[in-house]
Amino acid sequence: MERRDSDRRGGDDDEKLMIEDVFKDTMVPTWHQQITFRAMATSLVLSVVFNFIVCKLNLTTGVIPSFNVSAGLLGYALVKTYTTFLEKFGMLKHPFTRQENTVIQTCIVASSGIAFSSGTASYLMAMSPRVAAEADGGNTPENVKALHLGWMVAFLFVVSFVGLFSIVPLRKMMILKYKLTYPSGTATAYLINSFHTPKGARLAKKQVAVLFKSFGFSFVFAFFQWFFTGGDSCGFSSFPTFGLQAFKQKFYFDFSSTYVGVGMICPYIVNISLLLGAVVSWGIMWPIIETKKGIWYSSELSESSLHGIQGYRVFIAIAMMLGDGLYHVVVMLITTLHSLLKQHNSKKNVVVATSIEEQKTEIGEDFNEKRRTEFFLKDQIPNWAACSGYVVLAAIAMICVPLIFHQLKWYHILVSFSFAPVLAFCNAYGCGLTDWSLASNYGKIAIIIFSSWVGLQNGGIVAGLAACGVMMSTVSTASDLMQDFKTGYLTLSSPRAMFFSQVLGTTMGCIITPLVFWFFYRAYTIGDPTGPYPAPYAQLYRGIAILGVDGVSSLPKNCLELSIAFCIAAIAVNIVSQLLQKYETKYRVYRFIPNPMCMAIPFYLGGYFAIDMCIGSLILFLWTMKNKRMADDFAPAVASGLICGESLWGVPAAVLSLANLNPPICMKFLSARSNARVDSFLNGN
Amino acid sequence: MERRDSDRRGGDDDEKLMIEDVFKDTMVPTWHQQITFRAMATSLVLSVVFNFIVCKLNLTTGVIPSFNVSAGLLGYALVKTYTTFLEKFGMLKHPFTRQENTVIQTCIVASSGIAFSSGTASYLMAMSPRVAAEADGGNTPENVKALHLGWMVAFLFVVSFVGLFSIVPLRKMMILKYKLTYPSGTATAYLINSFHTPKGARLAKKQVAVLFKSFGFSFVFAFFQWFFTGGDSCGFSSFPTFGLQAFKQKFYFDFSSTYVGVGMICPYIVNISLLLGAVVSWGIMWPIIETKKGIWYSSELSESSLHGIQGYRVFIAIAMMLGDGLYHVVVMLITTLHSLLKQHNSKKNVVVATSIEEQKTEIGEDFNEKRRTEFFLKDQIPNWAACSGYVVLAAIAMICVPLIFHQLKWYHILVSFSFAPVLAFCNAYGCGLTDWSLASNYGKIAIIIFSSWVGLQNGGIVAGLAACGVMMSTVSTASDLMQDFKTGYLTLSSPRAMFFSQVLGTTMGCIITPLVFWFFYRAYTIGDPTGPYPAPYAQLYRGIAILGVDGVSSLPKNCLELSIAFCIAAIAVNIVSQLLQKYETKYRVYRFIPNPMCMAIPFYLGGYFAIDMCIGSLILFLWTMKNKRMADDFAPAVASGLICGESLWGVPAAVLSLANLNPPICMKFLSARSNARVDSFLNGN
Repeated sequence: MERRDSDRRGGDDDEKLMIEDVFKDTMVPTWHQQITFRAMATSLVLSVVFNFIVCKLNLTTGVIPSFNVSAGLLGYALVKTYTTFLEKFGMLKHPFTRQENTVIQTCIVASSGIAFSSGTASYLMAMSPRVAAEADGGNTPENVKALHLGWMVAFLFVVSFVGLFSIVPLRKMMILKYKLTYPSGTATAYLINSFHTPKGARLAKKQVAVLFKSFGFSFVFAFFQWFFTGGDSCGFSSFPTFGLQAFKQKFYFDFSSTYVGVGMICPYIVNISLLLGAVVSWGIMWPIIETKKGIWYSSELSESSLHGIQGYRVFIAIAMMLGDGLYHVVVMLITTLHSLLKQHNSKKNVVVATSIEEQKTEIGEDFNEKRRTEFFLKDQIPNWAACSGYVVLAAIAMICVPLIFHQLKWYHILVSFSFAPVLAFCNAYGCGLTDWSLASNYGKIAIIIFSSWVGLQNGGIVAGLAACGVMMSTVSTASDLMQDFKTGYLTLSSPRAMFFSQVLGTTMGCIITPLVFWFFYRAYTIGDPTGPYPAPYAQLYRGIAILGVDGVSSLPKNCLELSIAFCIAAIAVNIVSQLLQKYETKYRVYRFIPNPMCMAIPFYLGGYFAIDMCIGSLILFLWTMKNKRMADDFAPAVASGLICGESLWGVPAAVLSLANLNPPICMKFLSARSNARVDSFLNGN
Repeated sequence: MERRDSDRRGGDDDEKLMIEDVFKDTMVPTWHQQITFRAMATSLVLSVVFNFIVCKLNLTTGVIPSFNVSAGLLGYALVKTYTTFLEKFGMLKHPFTRQENTVIQTCIVASSGIAFSSGTASYLMAMSPRVAAEADGGNTPENVKALHLGWMVAFLFVVSFVGLFSIVPLRKMMILKYKLTYPSGTATAYLINSFHTPKGARLAKKQVAVLFKSFGFSFVFAFFQWFFTGGDSCGFSSFPTFGLQAFKQKFYFDFSSTYVGVGMICPYIVNISLLLGAVVSWGIMWPIIETKKGIWYSSELSESSLHGIQGYRVFIAIAMMLGDGLYHVVVMLITTLHSLLKQHNSKKNVVVATSIEEQKTEIGEDFNEKRRTEFFLKDQIPNWAACSGYVVLAAIAMICVPLIFHQLKWYHILVSFSFAPVLAFCNAYGCGLTDWSLASNYGKIAIIIFSSWVGLQNGGIVAGLAACGVMMSTVSTASDLMQDFKTGYLTLSSPRAMFFSQVLGTTMGCIITPLVFWFFYRAYTIGDPTGPYPAPYAQLYRGIAILGVDGVSSLPKNCLELSIAFCIAAIAVNIVSQLLQKYETKYRVYRFIPNPMCMAIPFYLGGYFAIDMCIGSLILFLWTMKNKRMADDFAPAVASGLICGESLWGVPAAVLSLANLNPPICMKFLSARSNARVDSFLNGN
């Protein structure tokens, strides 16, 4: 997992050694000067943009790359354009500082983080009648809750802020004492620092130009594609690139520039794992299981019934994800405990095992460190404020959540919030070491616990899903905040500014996320497994809740055995990878061990987006072969442009759909035989 | 027209000044050493390749770019690979010389020249029952001749060699005395010379690599496209890129890499003229005329009847082509006469008006010129051999052609061959000045003269078309030969080797061309205006013949008036262009005057290939903007690769079609409304 860390930081060491020397003569603004109006306005605009992007990704595949670089670039581009414009007319009062840039970045990441942790496409969507009808087990009124904008916003407000207060008091320990790495936060800080050096600004300008070019291409291409989607399974997204047979098994390139871009950002192994998962499941397993139709499961069941083939897809995927999640939670707990013990034994300021390197380069950088610590300690957030904030917010949640979900009682929430700070700490600490937030894993475990506690009769499914929301929101915002503190530490931004920026971003997210989701929800059929917006995690999360209330009795034949096998396999793969990483350092074979979590996603969805993403990888690979320097500098910009362009076309497309303006042409793919029939039908009329 | 000249020679002047110095120490092989077995084998292979390409272009649009550069590059690549391979094993006896390269080039150009002048897609195809049935006027047994491989080969052998002998005695006059430019020949010579210098060889190697890359892309893309063409109007070639309405008016991008490549080779103005022609005709004129359906022409006529809308398309196109052709023939005659008179007046070795520049740079290059002249005069072809060859071949033609076409009598052939040498001289001379071969214009004039002479009852249509063949073959091979003599002169190749190479190439062409055509003819429906192989010139040439026998009486209402208007317009545009070229030298506005001949082609075919070609232009333009040097060096290679790749896919595609292996998928484009109907039809079954 550390490879993600080292990947991101390649080549930054030179700058790191002298970065605060470069900024020595630059004044650091006070904390309230860092939160400017223009920063907030920019954040609002980009929050909306990224909410659209994340929402679309959530609803299509649930695979979401890190948007730190895109957010950083775009935020910088917007404010810099604005300030340069003002400067030309001599009207610029305050120059654009890196602290302000950090505030923007934090705010955007916080609000688009809500788009992920709000579960509009996972646990909330899983409660909806539509998904409930598909899953067919547990489709009782008690276990279904129709989605409405009002209660979604209310719920998010109640649960999203608790996490922030739970972790604030620990910031000094994690950042200054333990010196945790927080790779994403660190990378973001270096990006922002580099933008504000003259050389960095030049590169950033070029990167922004490239980003907008690929943005334009992606937007126009998506616009072009739209014209040909005048009907079901029409258009480029149904292009049977590898033939009709492969298309039926969901192997095709669907011309989505978004996922090509996502593929360029994700590490190679992620994309390969996805493809491997697709081959194993849709290429081998499902066709074999389908030959047992009528034996293992009734042949009269619909394609989407969880008692039929869909059951194998959903539950085997869940089993792999749970296995992988369980492994990481256990490893994380052990690592945390181990490293805390070590800290305790060797008392003060001693190296954390996994961040030796970081430490090494930081030692001796007295000037950098001194200045950073000085500014980090300047604006305090009193512990009493944090603690009383947590208690008050938890109390509000205990009152309000049962009002929204009558299936959950106040004591359920109390139990959640007793465990939450511990898990929030674990997650923030683990994230500091490995950059992996395990929030959704904690959420999945919460589903099983709470749904079996409440039981099917009392609406255990909704209760479990709602508890998942409570847990995920708390845990996820906590680790986000700590990442931001690290970024702030490295850019001399005030922790208080970071905290307020995070609060503001969270507020934006709580309002924007449900609105954006609602926009898509009204415009399209969300959650239809064969449609363009299958919202895969909704079905998977409901599947977990059903497991919680029903146990394993509801699964089709042999599904339990297969699920257990895949769960164990997922754990085994992780163990093998970990062992190889530790003991086989020559060829570093562990780099080629696939990631079980990634393999599980296409089990349910099919391989089409894995193919898009592998094409992204291929482009990146060829580009790196041809010109490594260029690829390193510009690939993230190209990828961001591709992602943003197509995703933003989603807005006008949804507007057109709401206005009932349908595309004029259908690009249809027929077998030669059906085509002959269609031709004779069309000519006959 | 001279712009083509200067375009091609840009940047060659440096090399020209010292080129023979570079080769001073290289031995020049004797003439029979220049015609090696490996050269002939290479020529044979590439002749087949280029015959396929030209045949496919002929049958689709009739727009054929100059393949000199591609032939040069590929010939060089093949032999160089072979010799390098032999050299590695120490088995190379004779090094690869530029004279040998010239022989290959000449042979390929000669044989693929036959693919053009053989008229398989124009005058021969125009005799076929299929085209006759479409044209509906003059569809009597006397005026139709079914195509057969046997008589086509015989006819080509009889008429294709006469031209060579008619012009041989004049070579010294044209090359040494008049010092005509022959831009294509000169450009080819510089290309070949540069390949054989060390610097040139390096560039050539890179160019070949680029050519093969784009070849591979084009081939694979065509292969990929094939899978989606499982039915009529299926696949990428029916992609309504600009919407269904534009598609009906034949405005769409048909994803043909061939024509994108052709567009990259053709001058910008050619592509713009094509597009303009398409807009004027299919965008404006035909829609207006179609509103007169039932008034100007019967509304019961089929789409392809020459008495209906198709008549306007065909005859207005013919009128423009005839107008343009007439203008050029007249100008050429005047220029030739004028320049001959001038030559005569100032006696010896004086500058030909239009080749002043060429002359200027050549003066003072004593060494270059001395050596070139020496080798040009070394191997003589006796005049008595040439003259008696001409007489014997003409006599054979007089006996054989009437045997093949009983509609033509021996005296028709005699008349043809009395005029032919004069026209051959005019064409060779004009081509030397301007690089434009007017063979097809002389052919069109021959159609009108002979078809009206013979008359409808006696099979005037077939007679006119056959006479066109006699004329075109003679005139066209004559100018080709003279181009080759120029190339030979500049590469120190022996004229005798050039002559034999041309004879061999012509022989190859006479056999390969009909075979390749027959291959397509058996595999596809050729000559169907709505199919993939409309063979546009077949319909147009038959239209001319019908004009010849019927006069203008058969035209639909107002068609004559429109045709005359466009004929005059074509002449006027040419005059304006010529005047501007002469008197307006500041902004050189003449560069933006469209070419009427080019404008006329889409009148019949529609704009789709013009759009392909304009995209080629656009690519070239953007590339030149970005990096002129790279674009100049590599654009012809990329274009050649694009053309060759897709065209060569035609071979396996035709084989598959002959074997009745049809593509499995149909990519269909339906309006949203028909799609709804089709969906309900498919679901209802």
